Amino acid sequence: MGYDASTLPDVSDLTVGIIGGTGDQGRGLAYRFALAGQRVLIGSRDASRAAAVAEEIAALPGVPAGGITGGGNDQVATGSDVVVIAVPWEGHEATVAALADPLRGKIVVDCVNPLGFDKQGPYALAVPEGSAVQQAAGLLPESRVCAAFNHVSAPLLADPTIEWIDLDVLICGEDREAVGVVAALAGRIPGMRGVYAGRLRNAHQIEAFTANLIAINRRYKAHTGVRVTDL
Amino acid sequence: MGYDASTLPDVSDLTVGIIGGTGDQGRGLAYRFALAGQRVLIGSRDASRAAAVAEEIAALPGVPAGGITGGGNDQVATGSDVVVIAVPWEGHEATVAALADPLRGKIVVDCVNPLGFDKQGPYALAVPEGSAVQQAAGLLPESRVCAAFNHVSAPLLADPTIEWIDLDVLICGEDREAVGVVAALAGRIPGMRGVYAGRLRNAHQIEAFTANLIAINRRYKAHTGVRVTDL
Repeated sequence: MGYDASTLPDVSDLTVGIIGGTGDQGRGLAYRFALAGQRVLIGSRDASRAAAVAEEIAALPGVPAGGITGGGNDQVATGSDVVVIAVPWEGHEATVAALADPLRGKIVVDCVNPLGFDKQGPYALAVPEGSAVQQAAGLLPESRVCAAFNHVSAPLLADPTIEWIDLDVLICGEDREAVGVVAALAGRIPGMRGVYAGRLRNAHQIEAFTANLIAINRRYKAHTGVRVTDL
Repeated sequence: MGYDASTLPDVSDLTVGIIGGTGDQGRGLAYRFALAGQRVLIGSRDASRAAAVAEEIAALPGVPAGGITGGGNDQVATGSDVVVIAVPWEGHEATVAALADPLRGKIVVDCVNPLGFDKQGPYALAVPEGSAVQQAAGLLPESRVCAAFNHVSAPLLADPTIEWIDLDVLICGEDREAVGVVAALAGRIPGMRGVYAGRLRNAHQIEAFTANLIAINRRYKAHTGVRVTDL
């Protein structure tokens, strides 16, 4: 059967909100979604900071006029169809919990990786709920929560000279239709492909694998991603 | 800098032992190493069973005459330079502990994935030591323990019509020289490439990721593996 992108829904009209859109990962995803023609809302606790970052991204070559604006997290959650959580792990629980109401009924994409760093490099942090996305799912019982975009390289996303990003976006989730929407969104970014990679209980190792990619990057001086073969 | 296979050692003279060589994963690896021209010893608790499986593999097309023999686990550990642990997780601790003496000073490659299965599919089991390979490292303080070959597809390995296996073998370990030997061994199998992927404390997610590959295989009807991009 293999992978068949033609079965994915048309997501070109969806508005994508990025909570934590002023950080490196969120900013890079916002740029790529805006480049692809999605309407993008950048969220931050500080609405004026979000607006400033949205203006910076809007000024980058190839971003359609009016395609990206910024606002407070609440406003962005309310105004978006799909909401990406891209905050630092330290602020994850509090930020997600505070947005439970505006995120009701929405597709929520958690791309947060709970990692620690010491002199031996990166390592996966223990998360009582199992993973960041399971913590989010517990806090957002009325949202459609997936994990995805955990392995994007922020420097590659941010670099306007890079047009193709060689990455299979691994998606974990319980809601097959939501996974399809997220897979279609991933496929809007040239080079990316969204691949269903299991239920939320198997998301921990996807998040934690980012520590391995960082270790690989350090050893080989690269900006690595992953591809699933035979698909 | 990127990936440079020319820096890897020549391992063509090394004897590779496979503990649990009568199971699907071990048998498949034994076949591929023998095809590649390594001397291979298949180990089992039951030496006569190991000898029978070695004879079956020796009869497959392309396997050099005399390249593969079978024996008891102790004998195989003693007679090999590199020893692959490919036993079921249930027998991992007891089997490894019993081989501490013959494995002294050897490179030990653990490819065991602690997984459970229920009606929702595969999931990662909690391991008190963190991972199978960390359990092995604790039991084998005088061995050079790495994790590798966790993501090989047993059906692909076993299929003599498949000549190229599209897989980056992710290797975790503390001993850089041992990692290099294991990377070189992986590179002996056409299509495979051995990639350093972090320290042993980051092996859990490599083992657990096998649950995701199984979930992907079920969804897309494929025999998937992984490739690291930008290397």
